[in-house]
Amino acid sequence: MSRKPALAVVGATGAAGAVMLQILSQHADVWGDIRLLASPRSAGRKLAVRGEECEVLALDEDTLRGVDVAVFLVPEDVAARWAPIAAAQGAVVVDASAAFRMDPDVPLVVPEINPHAVRVRPRGIVASPGCTTLALIVAVGALHAEFGLSELVVSAYQAVSGAGQAGVAALREQLSTVAGTRLGTTPGDVRRAVGDDTGPFAGPVALNVVPWSGTPQQDGWSSEELRIRDETRKILDLPGLRVAATCVRVPVVTAHSVSVHARFERAVTVERAHEILATSPGVVLYDDPAAGDFPTPADVVGTDPTWVGRVRRSLDDDRALDFFVCGDNLRKGAALNTAQVAESVAAELTAGLAAGRSAGEAAYAVD
Amino acid sequence: MSRKPALAVVGATGAAGAVMLQILSQHADVWGDIRLLASPRSAGRKLAVRGEECEVLALDEDTLRGVDVAVFLVPEDVAARWAPIAAAQGAVVVDASAAFRMDPDVPLVVPEINPHAVRVRPRGIVASPGCTTLALIVAVGALHAEFGLSELVVSAYQAVSGAGQAGVAALREQLSTVAGTRLGTTPGDVRRAVGDDTGPFAGPVALNVVPWSGTPQQDGWSSEELRIRDETRKILDLPGLRVAATCVRVPVVTAHSVSVHARFERAVTVERAHEILATSPGVVLYDDPAAGDFPTPADVVGTDPTWVGRVRRSLDDDRALDFFVCGDNLRKGAALNTAQVAESVAAELTAGLAAGRSAGEAAYAVD
Repeated sequence: MSRKPALAVVGATGAAGAVMLQILSQHADVWGDIRLLASPRSAGRKLAVRGEECEVLALDEDTLRGVDVAVFLVPEDVAARWAPIAAAQGAVVVDASAAFRMDPDVPLVVPEINPHAVRVRPRGIVASPGCTTLALIVAVGALHAEFGLSELVVSAYQAVSGAGQAGVAALREQLSTVAGTRLGTTPGDVRRAVGDDTGPFAGPVALNVVPWSGTPQQDGWSSEELRIRDETRKILDLPGLRVAATCVRVPVVTAHSVSVHARFERAVTVERAHEILATSPGVVLYDDPAAGDFPTPADVVGTDPTWVGRVRRSLDDDRALDFFVCGDNLRKGAALNTAQVAESVAAELTAGLAAGRSAGEAAYAVD
Repeated sequence: MSRKPALAVVGATGAAGAVMLQILSQHADVWGDIRLLASPRSAGRKLAVRGEECEVLALDEDTLRGVDVAVFLVPEDVAARWAPIAAAQGAVVVDASAAFRMDPDVPLVVPEINPHAVRVRPRGIVASPGCTTLALIVAVGALHAEFGLSELVVSAYQAVSGAGQAGVAALREQLSTVAGTRLGTTPGDVRRAVGDDTGPFAGPVALNVVPWSGTPQQDGWSSEELRIRDETRKILDLPGLRVAATCVRVPVVTAHSVSVHARFERAVTVERAHEILATSPGVVLYDDPAAGDFPTPADVVGTDPTWVGRVRRSLDDDRALDFFVCGDNLRKGAALNTAQVAESVAAELTAGLAAGRSAGEAAYAVD
């Protein structure tokens, strides 16, 4: 090929954007030009990527022109508007938002689980799953490949950075209010001290847990809970999978945890589950409770893999495993998975470009 | 009857003991003498109960003499040693520890669920369940009575006071360390700031969750997790019930929460579940997420009932309900249930005494 693909990072100035720039500086460099795009009010800022200062440009039709791959790390409404425009101009879009995840013409890709799905993208858009799904799917997918998943019951312990910088700011502020006090012992004392402004959360999150995230959906379920179900089904290509998810926000800055009860079609053993998890790409098995070894958010924040511990076979059901996973919701849960998908597209385009096809043509190539 | 039964509160100076003295001052007064007992080093302290100062006596064979009912709010090893001594002297013991819960000759009683079990106590000892079981059992038991429980998958969000004053102190100290900092964003930064002394927990609990509580048991399960299974089976008289529990410590001072996935023998509806929960003694239904109504620890701490919200029927299984419960682990989870059991024994003894039987005879009376 004559050139490496050009990349646009849309949302470069956000929290996930910052992690993306780190990743681009650390990973093998598969990119030609890298263009940083953001809202007009962030234009003109300079950010470092691959060791060089790079000026942030305002996102518009002009700045999306000539891009081979555009990663979108922006809110859902921004992605819904701009991703089709980028795709229409010939870019392959990799979108981290929920805007296109359930579109049947948009593949939902986790490279460790369904790498080939990225090739079939009729709209020129590829979606990356939500951060809670990404906290569990690599481990669950590896076990599914061996045992055949039939049911998932999961309870999430979601970090506040899943709600963006506003979530982190809310927790930090509330922690300053409650630290050094005797709060947390009488009804509503934390709520009164924190006040009505609980930031992006439906209640105070310091000295508390809040069993709600997302927006109200059918029959009492939250959007975040239904996403875990819908995304898991789509990624594993198990449209009838039974999934019951509960999302609870906890006073942790970054790294989502999930308590997973997984039922399989075939009998399981902890030994075999350990072997699978210990050898699966993107997974670290950390499971010796007697030695104090199990994943916690404070230990795994800032790292790439899904950490798995507390692996137990149900005492009442030889086809069920219980385990606890932790994963950084800003890395694998957002920027990292998006970068991995974009890199797989880059490899494909590079091969296509080498064969003399345009990026647009290569984007529709299916093996 | 000529007199009200005499009560001994063993462990009066502890956290659960303090709540017990509050409860004794608030509830209808069914007791004659109330004697406060504790370890020799706490003897001589004066505590208020029923509006009067009362001197704490050292626990020994003499101070247990002449007691009709003895509530034990002490560690397991202390209860294991002293409860049989109190029973041998004629007292009916109501023990909040785990020492006797699985003894087939000791009933495990939650008055809202199995009140009659208290009457059959061959050892003169009645046990109260653990705080995590008590957070969920009243709601689960009410639904079981209607729908027939067949399986439970639960994930707990356990408050630090479940580990006693040392747990509360550890969280308060760690919170002071992390408040006002940027900790929680790089691997191990919280662990390094907190240091090796994480109190009674297997890891730092500020800005973190710790998926471990209790001691290591068979096949990777923790003692706390197996207790939820064993206790639930015994209280509901369902020896073959399938239970998978995961216990996780969270940075909350008081009030345990549990995410419950319950499967039943019969089809369920949210409407009927709401009716049952809204009319069950000891339960408050608080379930309107669109209005921000769901239980959180900060709201329910210091209250007696089990609070239930987020009631949903599984989208994939019309016999499964998911819901979220919160309960104060020091009230219903410890002192309150113990007090309720003791009061039911008092009523029985009073009836027995009225009929001219001794407390010892009444203790063996079975309807």
